[in-house]
Amino acid sequence: MGCTLSGIASKKSNSNMSEIKIQDLEDIANKLRIHSIKCTQASNSGHPTSCASMAEITSVLFFHTMRYKVSAPRDPSSDRFILSKGHAAPILYAAWAEAGLFSPDDLMNLRKIDSDLEGHPTPRLNFIDVATGSLGQGLSVACGMAYVGKYYDKASYRTYCLIGDGESAEGSIWEALSFAGIKKLDNLVAIFDINRLGQSEPTAFQHEMDVYQARLESFGFNALVVDGHDVEALCKAFHEASQTKGKPTAVLAKTYKGRGFPEIEDKENWHGKPLGAKAEDVIAHIQALIKNAGPNNLVPQKPLRENAPEVKISDIKLSSPPNYKKGMCNIYHGDKVATREAYGKALAKLAENNKSVIALDGDTKNSTFSNGIMKTDPERYIECFIAEQNLVGVGIGAACRDRTVAFVSTFAAFFTRAFDQLRMGAISQTNINCVGSHAGISIGGDGPSQMALEDLAMFRTIPTATVFYPSDAVSTERACELAANTPGICFIRTSRPGTTVVYDNDHKFELGKAKVIKSSDNDEVLVIGAAITLREALTAADQLLDNGTNVRILDLFTIKPIDKDGIIENARECGGRIIVVEDHYPEGGIGEAVMSAVATERDIIVRHLAVPRVPRSGNCDELLDMFGISASAIVKAVNEIKSL
Amino acid sequence: MGCTLSGIASKKSNSNMSEIKIQDLEDIANKLRIHSIKCTQASNSGHPTSCASMAEITSVLFFHTMRYKVSAPRDPSSDRFILSKGHAAPILYAAWAEAGLFSPDDLMNLRKIDSDLEGHPTPRLNFIDVATGSLGQGLSVACGMAYVGKYYDKASYRTYCLIGDGESAEGSIWEALSFAGIKKLDNLVAIFDINRLGQSEPTAFQHEMDVYQARLESFGFNALVVDGHDVEALCKAFHEASQTKGKPTAVLAKTYKGRGFPEIEDKENWHGKPLGAKAEDVIAHIQALIKNAGPNNLVPQKPLRENAPEVKISDIKLSSPPNYKKGMCNIYHGDKVATREAYGKALAKLAENNKSVIALDGDTKNSTFSNGIMKTDPERYIECFIAEQNLVGVGIGAACRDRTVAFVSTFAAFFTRAFDQLRMGAISQTNINCVGSHAGISIGGDGPSQMALEDLAMFRTIPTATVFYPSDAVSTERACELAANTPGICFIRTSRPGTTVVYDNDHKFELGKAKVIKSSDNDEVLVIGAAITLREALTAADQLLDNGTNVRILDLFTIKPIDKDGIIENARECGGRIIVVEDHYPEGGIGEAVMSAVATERDIIVRHLAVPRVPRSGNCDELLDMFGISASAIVKAVNEIKSL
Repeated sequence: MGCTLSGIASKKSNSNMSEIKIQDLEDIANKLRIHSIKCTQASNSGHPTSCASMAEITSVLFFHTMRYKVSAPRDPSSDRFILSKGHAAPILYAAWAEAGLFSPDDLMNLRKIDSDLEGHPTPRLNFIDVATGSLGQGLSVACGMAYVGKYYDKASYRTYCLIGDGESAEGSIWEALSFAGIKKLDNLVAIFDINRLGQSEPTAFQHEMDVYQARLESFGFNALVVDGHDVEALCKAFHEASQTKGKPTAVLAKTYKGRGFPEIEDKENWHGKPLGAKAEDVIAHIQALIKNAGPNNLVPQKPLRENAPEVKISDIKLSSPPNYKKGMCNIYHGDKVATREAYGKALAKLAENNKSVIALDGDTKNSTFSNGIMKTDPERYIECFIAEQNLVGVGIGAACRDRTVAFVSTFAAFFTRAFDQLRMGAISQTNINCVGSHAGISIGGDGPSQMALEDLAMFRTIPTATVFYPSDAVSTERACELAANTPGICFIRTSRPGTTVVYDNDHKFELGKAKVIKSSDNDEVLVIGAAITLREALTAADQLLDNGTNVRILDLFTIKPIDKDGIIENARECGGRIIVVEDHYPEGGIGEAVMSAVATERDIIVRHLAVPRVPRSGNCDELLDMFGISASAIVKAVNEIKSL
Repeated sequence: MGCTLSGIASKKSNSNMSEIKIQDLEDIANKLRIHSIKCTQASNSGHPTSCASMAEITSVLFFHTMRYKVSAPRDPSSDRFILSKGHAAPILYAAWAEAGLFSPDDLMNLRKIDSDLEGHPTPRLNFIDVATGSLGQGLSVACGMAYVGKYYDKASYRTYCLIGDGESAEGSIWEALSFAGIKKLDNLVAIFDINRLGQSEPTAFQHEMDVYQARLESFGFNALVVDGHDVEALCKAFHEASQTKGKPTAVLAKTYKGRGFPEIEDKENWHGKPLGAKAEDVIAHIQALIKNAGPNNLVPQKPLRENAPEVKISDIKLSSPPNYKKGMCNIYHGDKVATREAYGKALAKLAENNKSVIALDGDTKNSTFSNGIMKTDPERYIECFIAEQNLVGVGIGAACRDRTVAFVSTFAAFFTRAFDQLRMGAISQTNINCVGSHAGISIGGDGPSQMALEDLAMFRTIPTATVFYPSDAVSTERACELAANTPGICFIRTSRPGTTVVYDNDHKFELGKAKVIKSSDNDEVLVIGAAITLREALTAADQLLDNGTNVRILDLFTIKPIDKDGIIENARECGGRIIVVEDHYPEGGIGEAVMSAVATERDIIVRHLAVPRVPRSGNCDELLDMFGISASAIVKAVNEIKSL
């Protein structure tokens, strides 16, 4: 035990150190329990029993094992802690209060609208890296942090993630565990708080610790089963973790929900409930167990070495400008380049310019062209295999504390797999960049399972999102450059088939600024398309002109923010008639974004061409025709709307 | 070996049975390889090497192990087969062609727009139960089928699911494996085609069979490692699976990608590519291995017992009508009932009326009130624990072949976890009903991680979806009744807080038919709200009336289909002014649905009140105010829009 407890910082120096420190850690655990009860009483909601099971774990981590600066919670060289079971927020808040970051009195503001001590943790608090509360997501983020710590920062900080046994049913946990094992993240500790009880019934494996151990070992972990209420055993386990090289450690803590709450401990039907009338007695009971009710004898330990390097993630530029041959204002001349290919080029250039730029993919790097970054530096590519939830989670983790500029790619359709991670990413104030290829029916023969037709709708709902839908290679490269410098979640939608280059290489792009691609003084309809449908719109414009009809063509560049003023102004100059044509389902995409932009304008109407039903395999042009988003469909729609 | 091969149906009866049958199975495997090469040559796309690794598995399953009717591919008593690695579609199609369902000549139409032999399987083909191609989803569906087979149908049919090693990185696979182990699905066989190579590089574990075996065993499987190109070993393994009781079996087949393709087998950079110029030589090579090039000696075996019971899933009714006390046209009288509670009541009543109604949940049954069904019959509730991807997948599997009417519930926010499953569910033509509780900021203190603010956008994109957003208990019960009888994916959004009952118990509801809740002859604005915002709209209307302004209030009931005619007609009667107020982010929800409905109408404008940014913890009323969707926000918006 000597070695494991010798590291405890203590204000005391007399008598039997070890025993005192054990008692101190136990006292802190019980203080945290009392805080958890009191603040959930005050808010009349919350999860005190879920806090109680992890009280000793929290005490040991915050006052013995972890090395961090209370004065600077996001210090780059500090250990990281992710509370994946976010509903136990009160005890995490209590730990930071006991550590001295803020007054424990503040805990009584839990869940109040003017307090940042929310029901589940969010980075509105300076000691929280990512929001948790949608279960099973914390470990992926922790993996991202640990990967960066081990392979990029090459620094001493360690990452701890506490996972509930209930949430360990989430597949995302197993994706992350597998990743941690494959990448040999020995600076990561996954702690399972195995308290036996879920929300509505016992978990599937209750206290079958051997099941957890076998699973964790098979996923490449050093898996330690401990009594989660024995602070000494926990200290030992975390020490062993720190000494284990080449593999991550899992601390499988056997605990009891509501531990230390008489008549409540280990009982069903106490999930997510304050103790109500029982609170007073329970607090008195716990209080009596505390030997040192005064200021804690223990204080958190500072980082041993402050060796996280300085990182600059602003003002990132393409190392050289786009270099394509522009078409002659129609589709028949100039380069045809798939925007996904332009993404690969941009990535290589951004990575050349800034060493913090990294790329992650889920075994589609030769389709999304994220393998472009490997030309600049193969070490800056992280293969996440076919596990998109973890892919996005690792990206979010890698971007935490501004350590990297992460580009995460897969087929746009498969980002749907990570919608919950993206939704939580917005709450987490993450800055990742997502690049989704193979947009829409234009991919052809692979069929509907591979066609992204709801991705724009999904990313548009993300409150912090910027949604790029570049139409050619030049604008794609610039979209990547802008995304690297834009806070929040950026999404760039790329296409499989080649599209004509429509912009000069030195063309300037801005967020929320649409581009008129074709216009005349007597345009009758404003046609808005993107990428493949912009191509179709240009073809339609030529055909319409042959019959004497002029249409104006607009390329939005970003769907969110949308160029509301530009759309309204151009629409007015076209008789208030807009046609939106998009390779996406009708709901939530470009069409509805445009409708939203003009919703309060009388006299502007919008006709919408989109993929109206589940599509099928076929070749691109056949499909565009069959699902009504081809040049001929645009010609027909223009002729119909002209009279409205 | 005798027992395992004795079951082979054969047209031959002379000489050494076993040897001939082994040769026959090998011949069929090679014929399937040749079909896979030829049809991907014809389509000039597809995945012949991914087919080749599973050729022997396919041959053994379709011509030795499985019992099914070629004449009736969806016969309820037949064994089920799910090709989770959907990109190997050509060999699955080839197997059915060799089995006699259609001419092998048809295979040459692979991926053509007028053929249902799509790039990845879809149920447009009568021998496909669910679409696959987004990886890692097949096993959950198979689990749903197997659960129904074992516990509801109590029938002899077995379920086989073939999984690629690449896709085994998906967390959804591990959710499903865990479920299968917990539920002791001994009628399920998960076959892993471990061919070592992913799309862009080798898989993480390549041919480390011991890693797979340890993992599968720890997940409760009888895990058998076999040479996946040895038909005899495969026959034995499947036989052992059939004899294993109390746990599911995993057949871990060590295989080679491109098996039997000289210079291609086990080589990188051959994923998803037809063989091109090499095809001819490869075919000649394989052809030479085939002893019996004529009609197959083996035919598929029919089901041993046709003991799947008859099931009726139409005309499902509430066993008794809603029974609430209606409020007096405002919010202050009558019952206040949370719509989530009404869901629990409806579920119990539907289950009373029809024994095929089942419910599934992810450990939130006491919050969503899906535990209501347990009052009728606890056996008809399937606890899926906290694993929403598998939850939805099992629901889809349970609904296959019309065996059950499945209601799947969790917090609406957590359905985002299963967006990819839902997207694929539409392609699969599934009929599941999803019920998502805890809509929007009205949940209060738990904070943004638990608030569904993008669920309507998500479900609206599903092409086969019906989206219900009932405002009170009466309409919720009727929404559930309608959902049970409506094809496609139904989504019902329910709320945490109580809302006043606004409808009579005998009120009739229809899809796509909105209800005017309040009107006068001189309404100036049409206000559209739902549930909590309908409540706010009613309060606002009272306040506005005090100042002499009449507004009309509309309850859409279904957001998709939307009552376009009703909206336009009522909007016109209100001066063409609409205000939509919703507890959802601005994108893709009710607001944009309404804008879409009126997009081609000049003179109708829409003002939209929605949650504009990431919300926070607080109490319901404070939050409605802070995020601009309260009665006072509506009053302000009405006063502003009146002059437009």
